Amino acid sequence: MLSEFSLIDRFFARRAKTPAPRQGDAPLGIGDDCALIAPPAGHQLAISTDMLVEGRHFFPDVDPYALGHKALAVNLSDLAAMGAKPHAFTLALALPRADEAWLQAFSDGLFALADRFGCALIGGDTTSGPLNICITVFGDVPHHTALRRDAAKPGDDIYVSGTLGDARAALGAMLGEWQAPDAAASAWRRALERPEPRVALGMALGGIAHAALDISDGLAGDLMHILKRSNVRATVDADAVPCSDAVRAMPDAARRQCTLAGGDDYELCFTAPRTARDAIARIGERVGVPLTCIGRIESFGSPEIAWRDGAGAPLSLMLQGFDHFHAD
Amino acid sequence: MLSEFSLIDRFFARRAKTPAPRQGDAPLGIGDDCALIAPPAGHQLAISTDMLVEGRHFFPDVDPYALGHKALAVNLSDLAAMGAKPHAFTLALALPRADEAWLQAFSDGLFALADRFGCALIGGDTTSGPLNICITVFGDVPHHTALRRDAAKPGDDIYVSGTLGDARAALGAMLGEWQAPDAAASAWRRALERPEPRVALGMALGGIAHAALDISDGLAGDLMHILKRSNVRATVDADAVPCSDAVRAMPDAARRQCTLAGGDDYELCFTAPRTARDAIARIGERVGVPLTCIGRIESFGSPEIAWRDGAGAPLSLMLQGFDHFHAD
Repeated sequence: MLSEFSLIDRFFARRAKTPAPRQGDAPLGIGDDCALIAPPAGHQLAISTDMLVEGRHFFPDVDPYALGHKALAVNLSDLAAMGAKPHAFTLALALPRADEAWLQAFSDGLFALADRFGCALIGGDTTSGPLNICITVFGDVPHHTALRRDAAKPGDDIYVSGTLGDARAALGAMLGEWQAPDAAASAWRRALERPEPRVALGMALGGIAHAALDISDGLAGDLMHILKRSNVRATVDADAVPCSDAVRAMPDAARRQCTLAGGDDYELCFTAPRTARDAIARIGERVGVPLTCIGRIESFGSPEIAWRDGAGAPLSLMLQGFDHFHAD
Repeated sequence: MLSEFSLIDRFFARRAKTPAPRQGDAPLGIGDDCALIAPPAGHQLAISTDMLVEGRHFFPDVDPYALGHKALAVNLSDLAAMGAKPHAFTLALALPRADEAWLQAFSDGLFALADRFGCALIGGDTTSGPLNICITVFGDVPHHTALRRDAAKPGDDIYVSGTLGDARAALGAMLGEWQAPDAAASAWRRALERPEPRVALGMALGGIAHAALDISDGLAGDLMHILKRSNVRATVDADAVPCSDAVRAMPDAARRQCTLAGGDDYELCFTAPRTARDAIARIGERVGVPLTCIGRIESFGSPEIAWRDGAGAPLSLMLQGFDHFHAD
């Protein structure tokens, strides 16, 4: 069995990087009491932390490569939702045992994504204990262009990126709620295990979109976070919410459960003024991500979503976002 | 049972703070996808992360107030070791259940220490799962004055702050290795459960000391980190290592186990040139922390500690720093 220090060194420290210097600083990566970084001139650091636990965020038999990908992807998704450019991350890891094959695959999945986004591992902690992965990410965002949750304005269009519901559909298939069509099984599973953080989209929306967040707990619950923080009301066309053909073919109730309250989508939901419609369309084309308008911010007032169907008729939805303590 | 969101809100979010603005930024605290912070002009952010696991870093029956204190204290100690001023922290918490009394005590201990050092909670994550506490701290350190591990120079004195060994002595008493003297029992326990991060000392040493770190895994192993990163050899007087009267009264082997390889001390070990002796003495008086010279950096070369006893005779020590995976 490897000791803690050789374990860290072998799988993580040797692939860690010292961040690029900025503002005349002398950045410092892994191996000291602290890492040292600074944002570029005129920027702030956007910081987010997520903790993933076995049996809650992933199954015990999860592919460790996919887990390494997803553990960082969900954090990069938070940076994307802020319009921030990934810069660095720390990794704290509790492991029941030092399994070299598992660590090799996990670190391969982690660094493949980190390298793709130029995001350097700058520090961490490893301990024995029930499997737990806690990543904290750091991104750069120009002053005053961060995409906050409290900036939605009456008259704004409401958009979502990509399609929603595939990850929840995959989970339902794994739990026996429904069967995955043969043609969709691998796409559903990929959506659940390999979410793609919308980093380029988030960065492009800075200064153009008003409010934004990433959809991790389901559109209905997450959009409410924007409404509450912005103190506004919204109308949303439930049937306009973009989804894959396989999800569209599900019965209405199951489809809406997947697209509106599924969670684990890691697409962006954002609001933007009508005057930005052309700019938004161009951004979608440039970054190669479909952007769909699903509704609008109606007015200031007690936060609420008025759901409509495709014909404009009111829909009464019984939906609830994913909640870790309710889910027991 | 509280839902995740009301749980977070009740015990943490309402006591979170928005960091003070700096460099014309608009800082953002808890409640968005990311927090936003920036270091003051001419500073870098020092970042450290620590994960605490039940049965490994604390006993299941630990006082939750003390645990809240210690979880943040060990992170602030990393900032101190870098000479950084605490600014903010994130908290990720896995909990087996939403126990309100436990959360109240834990958060009280956490925020009592955070408020004392002006360190704002700016983000976090809560999930159900085996108890796990992961804190990431952010501190400010002026460019080029950070206390790094790779900066020890031949001729430097080696210092430690406070006394070493009480925390390990407490652990030994709890595990039945020895008995705590009545007069020392509460002081030992306090050293283990309520370490005091040497923040003022670390900040005062910036620009004066050469290399520094905090002693979390035992002096012998931790000092080796400085020697390896600086590529130097050291001589240390094992009997000069400062300890409490109760630890001094232990048999030699047990005393040295506690003071040299105990861990959980959270005192600073640092090196400084001889020309700084008067300045170091004044700093110790000003911040009210005893500073003891225990040896010197001899030369560049293959990293090694030559241990001596109080009479200057060579000592052969069989010591090992605490290692999470070896400790099984």
